[in-house]
Amino acid sequence: MFSFEHQFRVLYGHTDNMGVVYYGTYPLYYECGRTEMIRSIGLTYRQLEESGTLMPVKSMNISYHASARYDDLLTLKVTLREMPSVRITFHYEIFNEEGVLINEAETMLVFVDAKTFHPCRPPKVLMEKLSPYF
Amino acid sequence: MFSFEHQFRVLYGHTDNMGVVYYGTYPLYYECGRTEMIRSIGLTYRQLEESGTLMPVKSMNISYHASARYDDLLTLKVTLREMPSVRITFHYEIFNEEGVLINEAETMLVFVDAKTFHPCRPPKVLMEKLSPYF
Amino acid sequence: MFSFEHQFRVLYGHTDNMGVVYYGTYPLYYECGRTEMIRSIGLTYRQLEESGTLMPVKSMNISYHASARYDDLLTLKVTLREMPSVRITFHYEIFNEEGVLINEAETMLVFVDAKTFHPCRPPKVLMEKLSPYF
Amino acid sequence: MFSFEHQFRVLYGHTDNMGVVYYGTYPLYYECGRTEMIRSIGLTYRQLEESGTLMPVKSMNISYHASARYDDLLTLKVTLREMPSVRITFHYEIFNEEGVLINEAETMLVFVDAKTFHPCRPPKVLMEKLSPYF
Repeated sequence: MFSFEHQFRVLYGHTDNMGVVYYGTYPLYYECGRTEMIRSIGLTYRQLEESGTLMPVKSMNISYHASARYDDLLTLKVTLREMPSVRITFHYEIFNEEGVLINEAETMLVFVDAKTFHPCRPPKVLMEKLSPYF
Repeated sequence: MFSFEHQFRVLYGHTDNMGVVYYGTYPLYYECGRTEMIRSIGLTYRQLEESGTLMPVKSMNISYHASARYDDLLTLKVTLREMPSVRITFHYEIFNEEGVLINEAETMLVFVDAKTFHPCRPPKVLMEKLSPYF
Repeated sequence: MFSFEHQFRVLYGHTDNMGVVYYGTYPLYYECGRTEMIRSIGLTYRQLEESGTLMPVKSMNISYHASARYDDLLTLKVTLREMPSVRITFHYEIFNEEGVLINEAETMLVFVDAKTFHPCRPPKVLMEKLSPYF
Repeated sequence: MFSFEHQFRVLYGHTDNMGVVYYGTYPLYYECGRTEMIRSIGLTYRQLEESGTLMPVKSMNISYHASARYDDLLTLKVTLREMPSVRITFHYEIFNEEGVLINEAETMLVFVDAKTFHPCRPPKVLMEKLSPYF
C-alpha cells in the first residue's frame, strides 16, 4: 500500500452559490493529489506522458459526506491499495482542519499508448518506483 | 420514468492537454442537464432554493466510455427512474454526434432545509409536477 | 461592423461564495460567444484550427459593472468593429434580463501557424466571410 | 510598495486543447496569489469578509506574453504599488521556470459593505498591516 498526503486551500473560484466547494471542483483536487503522489516517488506524470503513455480516467466514484468552505485548509490523502496492472486505482480521502472526513472518492485510470490510444502496460519505471511499497 | 434531453457544444475551456474534455468538466454538464430538466416541468431549481430547500449532491458515479472533443455537439439524456423521496437520483447518458454513448453517470442529491441544512422532504410542488410521469 | 448575440443561463458551477458569477468565469462566456459568432457565418473555429491556424488570446480587458446571479438568463453581444489583420479584437457586452449592461470586455487574439506558432495572416475563408459586414 | 511571491504547478484541468494553460484559468491563479499575499501579513480574506467587508473585482486587464504548459512550476509575483483607498489594485507577474515573464495582469477591487453592497472604506486592520510597507 502506498499513501501520500497533500494540503491545499479552498479558493473562491472553487466555491458556489451555496457557500461551499462546488461538487464539480473535487476532481481537480484529486488530480492534484495523484500528480503530487507520483512526483513524491521521483517521477512526474508529464514524464510518463512524454515517454508515450497517457492515463485517461475511466471511472470515478465520489461520496460527499460534508461541505468544505472558502479558505478551508484541506488535507487530501491519496492511496494506492495495489500495484497498477492495465489499470491504476487511486483512493482519496479529504479531511478538514478538525480532522473530519468530508469526502471520499476513487478514480480508475487506464494506461494507453499516446499514439494509438490502445491499452498498454504501465510504464516500467512507474512499476519499479512503486514496487517497494507493495 | 421521466427523461429529458439537452444539447450543448464542448468549449475550449472544457478540454485539456490531452485534446479531450477534462474528466472534471462532466459534473458541470450534469448540473446543466438536471437544471434544464426541472425547468422543462415548469419549475426552476432557483425557485426551489428560494422557497427554502437546497439539494446538495451526496454521491456521483461516472463511467467514461469514450472521449469528447472540442466543439463536439453532445446530447445529454437525463433520467429520473423513480419519484424523489428524501433523495433524488439523476441518471445521465451523453451521446456524441454519431450517436455513440460516451459517458454515463448518476448523481444522488438530498433535500435539505436551507436554514438548518437538515434533511427534509422534497418540495410539494416538485412532487406534484413529477407525479404524472410515474 | 459585425455583431452577434448569444443567450445562456448561469450555472451553479459558475457562481461563487459571494452568491454571484465568479469573476474568472466570464472568459468562458466570451469564448462561447466568439465561437458561436464564427459559427453564425458558416465557419467553425475548429475548422480554422484544422486548416492550420490557431488563435491564442494575447490580451483581455474586463469591466465588471454589476453582478450576475445563479440561473440568470444573460445575453452576450459580441462585436467585431473592424476586419481582422494580424490580430482580431472581439468586444463583449453582457446584459441581464432587465436589459442592464453588467459586463464589458474585449479580447485581442492573434493568428498563428499551428505548427510553428509564428504569427500569420488570418485564414482567407474567414476574411471572405467577414468582408460583407465591413 | 508591497510584493509577495507564490509558486504553483499547472494542473491538467487548467490546460486546454491547445496544450497550454487556458486563458480563462489565470484569474484563479491571481485570486490565489492575492489571497496568500493577505495571509502573509497575518490576515485572511475570509476574516475581512466575516467582519463585514467584501471585495468584488471591478476590472481586470491581462497580457498573455507566452504560454504555460502542463506541470510547469510557475512563480506569481503580486504587488501592491500603493495603499488601498476605496479601491485596491493588485499587479501580477507570472514567471516560468526559466525566469521568463509569461503573463502580466492587474485587478482592481473595491471595498463594499457585506450587507448593503455599498462602497465602504477598507478595513482598518488591513490598512494597519499594510502601512509599514508604504
